Amino acid sequence: MDKRFEISLMLDLYSELLTDKQKDIMDLYFNDDLSLAEISEINNTSRQATYDIINRCQKLLLQYDSKLKLLDKQILVSGVKKEVQDKLAILKQKICSEDELDIINSIIEDIKQI
Amino acid sequence: MDKRFEISLMLDLYSELLTDKQKDIMDLYFNDDLSLAEISEINNTSRQATYDIINRCQKLLLQYDSKLKLLDKQILVSGVKKEVQDKLAILKQKICSEDELDIINSIIEDIKQI
Repeated sequence: MDKRFEISLMLDLYSELLTDKQKDIMDLYFNDDLSLAEISEINNTSRQATYDIINRCQKLLLQYDSKLKLLDKQILVSGVKKEVQDKLAILKQKICSEDELDIINSIIEDIKQI
Repeated sequence: MDKRFEISLMLDLYSELLTDKQKDIMDLYFNDDLSLAEISEINNTSRQATYDIINRCQKLLLQYDSKLKLLDKQILVSGVKKEVQDKLAILKQKICSEDELDIINSIIEDIKQI
């Protein structure tokens, strides 16, 4: 997985463990794709200071994920969810009874919540 | 939910964010159900020191969960999983075609991974 993309996924998972300031800077850099210079201007600080915060936060996110492994779990769950949704779609095409279709539709709705 | 049970569930989710020593003490107290006196004896420390560690770790776990909300997510996913498993069991009884049964059994296996 592309490192930048991986960090942005970890940001979704762990950003609440960062301070508001760290969160804002990481968000501008990884989600809004702003440059270090642009972020430094917004925050009225040096390019080096912005770089240091981003660098430190990346390390923090990687540390949290090495311990909690939420990214791996999320990837596993997404894969299983997709697999189940595909199989339910196939099943739906095979089944004619209204009663059984209702159950399948209700499972499809349940799966969306995960 | 009973507070002690809640903390023990949070321990499953966040114990990797504690130090080894903190983890051991929390495990002895919440999972092995040892008393403060027994844990203090094992660790050759005072009852007060053990109490302080447990108290501090409880606060840490609650703090982590107030930010990451993994316990709520786990409870939601478990509920959905149970719901889906029950519906698949009902569907299995209604269906006769070997082909459709295979798909349902394969979904049942997928769901176990979540």
